[in-house]
Amino acid sequence: MSIGNFDFDEPIDRRAVPALKTHPLVLGADGDHLFPAGVADMDFKAPPPVLDALSHRVAHGVFGYEAAPDGLLPALRDWLRSRHGWAVPAEQILQAPNVLNALSMAVNLFTREGDGIIVQPPVFFDFFDIIAENKRALVTHPLVLEDGRYRMDFEALAQLAAEPRTRMLLLCNPHNPVGRVWTRDELARLGEICRAHDVLVVADEIHADLVFPGHTYTPFAAVSDADARNSITCVSPAKTFNIPACSAAFTIIPDALRRTKFQAENSRLNVNKNNAFASWRWRRRTARAGRGSMRCLITSAAIAAAIGRWSASGSRTCRAWN
Amino acid sequence: MSIGNFDFDEPIDRRAVPALKTHPLVLGADGDHLFPAGVADMDFKAPPPVLDALSHRVAHGVFGYEAAPDGLLPALRDWLRSRHGWAVPAEQILQAPNVLNALSMAVNLFTREGDGIIVQPPVFFDFFDIIAENKRALVTHPLVLEDGRYRMDFEALAQLAAEPRTRMLLLCNPHNPVGRVWTRDELARLGEICRAHDVLVVADEIHADLVFPGHTYTPFAAVSDADARNSITCVSPAKTFNIPACSAAFTIIPDALRRTKFQAENSRLNVNKNNAFASWRWRRRTARAGRGSMRCLITSAAIAAAIGRWSASGSRTCRAWN
Repeated sequence: MSIGNFDFDEPIDRRAVPALKTHPLVLGADGDHLFPAGVADMDFKAPPPVLDALSHRVAHGVFGYEAAPDGLLPALRDWLRSRHGWAVPAEQILQAPNVLNALSMAVNLFTREGDGIIVQPPVFFDFFDIIAENKRALVTHPLVLEDGRYRMDFEALAQLAAEPRTRMLLLCNPHNPVGRVWTRDELARLGEICRAHDVLVVADEIHADLVFPGHTYTPFAAVSDADARNSITCVSPAKTFNIPACSAAFTIIPDALRRTKFQAENSRLNVNKNNAFASWRWRRRTARAGRGSMRCLITSAAIAAAIGRWSASGSRTCRAWN
Repeated sequence: MSIGNFDFDEPIDRRAVPALKTHPLVLGADGDHLFPAGVADMDFKAPPPVLDALSHRVAHGVFGYEAAPDGLLPALRDWLRSRHGWAVPAEQILQAPNVLNALSMAVNLFTREGDGIIVQPPVFFDFFDIIAENKRALVTHPLVLEDGRYRMDFEALAQLAAEPRTRMLLLCNPHNPVGRVWTRDELARLGEICRAHDVLVVADEIHADLVFPGHTYTPFAAVSDADARNSITCVSPAKTFNIPACSAAFTIIPDALRRTKFQAENSRLNVNKNNAFASWRWRRRTARAGRGSMRCLITSAAIAAAIGRWSASGSRTCRAWN
């Protein structure tokens, strides 16, 4: 399949770099003959403008200490607003090395040892690890499979949220792996229940951009101001552009007190330092013939010249969100 | 000045990327006219083989989830052994995003709130921040300036180490900014005092490779097995190759219990994930005409073909360690 100037069928040897999905850590010591499908990344290249911008950054040649590029937050804000209708004030956005780091820090900072944290299985296995590694108590709120589609049982959720030890819910939106893009109504009901019981919603929204036509991703924090204040949201270009190894993510924290606490922990741990290949500006424009078209740019500086274009069809994802 | 095929006089616009030293964060809002010398990095390019390897990595084009490259630890161990006479078992080495992260994690994991931590001023200001941000108590052991050269006052050190609340010493070796390359004897005396009082030595050895001819850097952990067991050492290619923005460092922890604890914290915080531009292999070989010559290689994979050579004279550093 070829879209625009990009060939999705170009075979690329993932073993030429230490790709985790072809690594003995995932395939096992004798797993060289297995088809590597154990890690959620894609076997085609990053978009041409990303590669151009990375090349451009390498060509500059100096990799000293760096601040975040001026264009970084405006680009992120523009993306979230124009693409998802989510207006995020710049001061609410913190840099993170990856979403898991941000999720774990949120668990650690805003709950105490032994507190209950709700997850909605079947869900991304790392949620369980994060809860265990932070010595919190797992509270499971299983999704209900009905007519081939998963839904939330809100009565059960209200009961779990009402337990005094329950302090947080880890939301996966869109949900990995069941493929649901939660509707605004579903998120509103969840948000209301959590606010009623003072349960903080920490949303992993890393798959936000990978949604089939006909479905709409709603940022949990965009449901209402009250929900925004009761939320921490993690986003990243890692899935959208297939670049987790570039180590870029953002944490959006509307509540000022929580944000100050989070920023202090970022500073204590020195995990929010800029690295030259992890600063992103990305943009979308609508395009011809009913197809979504994305324009994206990696900028590790104010290298505005590196703008390029990345076209992709509506079925551009390797997953099936619906 | 030109050495080998590298021109140290090539002017490079640091403002073309968000270099911290030319940034308003450091120069102030009206500081554009100031000479930027507020950050310890260099205004010339990374060595050609580093740039070649980065280009090579970009050309591969896929940036999915990655493990550490197979060649990474062997290369680091080879470097430390051949260059500094320090044999480090592979299992003692953990990856870190940067030295400050590792130092702060060590402070947090191996002391408690309110514990005393010795620093030896004048010293790198971030040591003070790390102690404050982790809510530990600052214990100052000032270096003594005598005949233009700094030395340690070991009697004063013994008194400070003997205080029950004192649990850790942050060693800077070679010392930033006074420029001392601590001798083996000095390190041995310091180590003995710390062991006598159960004070853990956490050594920032990021400047290890930047030493004038006639002086020898001794890794603190190489002084004796007993000192190794009572140490945590942080090293990085950041200063050696002027690449802090590539975000690569290592923590060396000989004690197995401490290492397990540190690794668990790495895992909890997801700060030790591989990023495609931060995996280093670097090597040295002795060369012609009384000059040190370094051969270095960045490999974000098993891209062994990217080997190159980087020649530099004995006065290759921007600082004066002696």
